[in-house]
Amino acid sequence: MTPPEWEAKSSEITEPDFSAGLITAVVQDSADNAVLMVAHMNEEAYRRTLRTRRAWFWSRSREQLWQKGETSGNVMDVDSVTIDCDGDSVLLRVHPHGPACHTGERSCFHNRPGDP
Amino acid sequence: MTPPEWEAKSSEITEPDFSAGLITAVVQDSADNAVLMVAHMNEEAYRRTLRTRRAWFWSRSREQLWQKGETSGNVMDVDSVTIDCDGDSVLLRVHPHGPACHTGERSCFHNRPGDP
Repeated sequence: MTPPEWEAKSSEITEPDFSAGLITAVVQDSADNAVLMVAHMNEEAYRRTLRTRRAWFWSRSREQLWQKGETSGNVMDVDSVTIDCDGDSVLLRVHPHGPACHTGERSCFHNRPGDP
Repeated sequence: MTPPEWEAKSSEITEPDFSAGLITAVVQDSADNAVLMVAHMNEEAYRRTLRTRRAWFWSRSREQLWQKGETSGNVMDVDSVTIDCDGDSVLLRVHPHGPACHTGERSCFHNRPGDP
């Protein structure tokens, strides 16, 4: 008897898939699991993050690499990186040195929807 | 004295910004704050999620709307939706009725990076 589709284990992934361009990075506070922000990474941002244990991203608007907090001082120490099952997203668990959001809020996710 | 850039409060956002196409949806378990998966939404998926309190997404590979769990039964009841500061990502806090990942793992984020 074959297991249901969702029980079939995928082959192990040890690298994100950059073939389609940028990957999505979700940033979570290691201390209490709060989701702080979402950003994007190219391969260089990903490698710098692993090597430096600081959060690096690719800015789509400025079209450049940036280390989170390089101007504000609110850098993020990276405790762990995990890759998702299809390799197009990563989860960074971090210790943030200040608010993640440019508004001063701790998390970028602080707006409630209006009418559905 | 002007506050530092990251302390300037953004104007309130009550709608995601669909002008650039799809938005990113991060799914987090309400019970323990585990990050379960990342998917994408068009405006219809977002509105259905708010109206039905079930997680709906847009499948980029199949190019169609899908309710998470519609075939596996692992639907997700949505407890809250939050929009991020620039309106291109949302955070869904959910009660999942089974594993989020098609591999059978609870979370799609279960792969460790290889060498940096």
